[in-house]
Amino acid sequence: MDVDEPVCLPRLSRVAVCGGTHGNELPGVYLVRELLKLQRRASEGEEDDGEEHTSMLTVLSNPRAVQQCRRYTDTDLNRCFTLATLNGPTSDSPPYEVLRAQELNAMLGPKGGPGAVDLVCDLHSTTANMGLCFIAYSDCDWICLHIFKHLQRRMPDTPMRFIHLGISGKESYSLDSVGKHGFAMEIGPQPHGGVRSDIYAVMSAGVRHMLDWVGLFNSGAVFEGGWVDVFTLVKNIDYPRDSKTHNITAAIHSHLQDRDFCLLRPHDPVFQTFSGETLRYEGGEPLYALFINECSYYEKGIALSLARKRRLAVPGIRAQTEEEEQADERALTSEEEE
Amino acid sequence: MDVDEPVCLPRLSRVAVCGGTHGNELPGVYLVRELLKLQRRASEGEEDDGEEHTSMLTVLSNPRAVQQCRRYTDTDLNRCFTLATLNGPTSDSPPYEVLRAQELNAMLGPKGGPGAVDLVCDLHSTTANMGLCFIAYSDCDWICLHIFKHLQRRMPDTPMRFIHLGISGKESYSLDSVGKHGFAMEIGPQPHGGVRSDIYAVMSAGVRHMLDWVGLFNSGAVFEGGWVDVFTLVKNIDYPRDSKTHNITAAIHSHLQDRDFCLLRPHDPVFQTFSGETLRYEGGEPLYALFINECSYYEKGIALSLARKRRLAVPGIRAQTEEEEQADERALTSEEEE
Repeated sequence: MDVDEPVCLPRLSRVAVCGGTHGNELPGVYLVRELLKLQRRASEGEEDDGEEHTSMLTVLSNPRAVQQCRRYTDTDLNRCFTLATLNGPTSDSPPYEVLRAQELNAMLGPKGGPGAVDLVCDLHSTTANMGLCFIAYSDCDWICLHIFKHLQRRMPDTPMRFIHLGISGKESYSLDSVGKHGFAMEIGPQPHGGVRSDIYAVMSAGVRHMLDWVGLFNSGAVFEGGWVDVFTLVKNIDYPRDSKTHNITAAIHSHLQDRDFCLLRPHDPVFQTFSGETLRYEGGEPLYALFINECSYYEKGIALSLARKRRLAVPGIRAQTEEEEQADERALTSEEEE
Repeated sequence: MDVDEPVCLPRLSRVAVCGGTHGNELPGVYLVRELLKLQRRASEGEEDDGEEHTSMLTVLSNPRAVQQCRRYTDTDLNRCFTLATLNGPTSDSPPYEVLRAQELNAMLGPKGGPGAVDLVCDLHSTTANMGLCFIAYSDCDWICLHIFKHLQRRMPDTPMRFIHLGISGKESYSLDSVGKHGFAMEIGPQPHGGVRSDIYAVMSAGVRHMLDWVGLFNSGAVFEGGWVDVFTLVKNIDYPRDSKTHNITAAIHSHLQDRDFCLLRPHDPVFQTFSGETLRYEGGEPLYALFINECSYYEKGIALSLARKRRLAVPGIRAQTEEEEQADERALTSEEEE
């Protein structure tokens, strides 16, 4: 294959936009509600729009947690989408979120199966100063990386980064892993349990540009290749804790607070103890700090995460034509028959 | 009485510093734990410090909510300190917070009684950009107003305001109302469920300067009078809501977000609906906006509060001497005998 020839990929006919996977992350909750309102109005106005190449599913993922304005009711829903949890036997009284994950898998999946939606975009917000982030399991999912590049071009004033979780698809645990392609769109800073209009506006623009891109892609547009900086998670660092009570004994140092994606060098300040002492980064390798002081991660024992950055080459892509898709299907069928 | 003669007030021999009245407001939780640690060390080191004029009680107000990192478990503890709730009969299974309020009243009160502690400082944090605020029921409690003036002088870089709730002592509902004098020290912005070291540092300095002031006052220092700007709450404004679902349909406008204590004038932007429309202030009187987009107030139906500002004359004060105190006690006793 010519290196300049774009990679051909199947069209994205079914896209899911999900919010409220964490019930207290309100920008996604209100954006999903707004999208549902618009969809209702559109369906009342123009009953049959034959032009549409894409069908959009809009999902409020954890309505019970949204109702209570909590991250979750029994267990973190966004850790329930492993194949083991989705397909395993359930106990007599399974956690609400396990049942809900299985429902969502039936609606959007099945995960790993041919019937799964083509793309899942799951909306999240964070108390950390993360700007707009894509979080994905793969660093070679050209669809996600091209959507990211598109948003970078269209929203030049928004700090934007691509985070690669660096664990195998098998171990993937989040809602976005149910789609053939998927990513979490994470935006901050904003406190949980509320909504800031600036964060809402960025999220709303991000989703609009993503859907625009999908429309362009499905209509046959060719997207040039290029480069994307990718942050791959290396490890998490917990707060210093009291050995007896397990209570934390320090907060993120004021020099590090709000400086997500800065390069943390050996001996840089990381924590300030509640008695005023500075604790420094003890690692030997400079790494990028992110999710600094995310409030939902206290219970997970994560004060910040550390990542390596590298520049990734992304090939040009285009959607398969109908003829190519049919040829692919025929090839697949004959393979299955062999 | 000569206007220049300082007002004489009883000494403050028992002071309570409380945190975790809202279990997810972590700066106060960690500061109280730190103070308890220092007290334990001091008591181990110097068994009997005869020099101390003041005894300090340090209280984690709502340990069950702290444990769960939630504002409260059954009901908002900081609304449970009305005389009706403290003294009323309890149902068969009273809310945990009602029982805890009665416990705290036994420990620090009884509210309104001669045995109550002299001063309660209750530590709070807020997601709104409030700086450091004193919140009090009275605008003529010279003790609270002088402590406020002292902190203003000692912490010139910290934005500081005095908020007067403007309801009668009878209706007072919060923990600080249990003391003979009392105020909430409210600091922001910071998300609930986490602790920022800058906010923690301001709170820690505020408490230290307050205790210093109490020490000076008890030692006979004379404090000059002066002026304090006081913000008196006038009303609360709720979010626009959908008439059927009661869900909010707008966020605080980006022009107003983070601008606590700005003067809101008629027709200024207040909300931005989730479909992008600007809603403006419809009141006729310019008022000061505060607690803008405090996340804990969504459930209370408060998007922001509005206040009037006025400048208050505060007289000079000093503590009564021992002789004056004894004379006062004799007078009181003879009054009782009459």
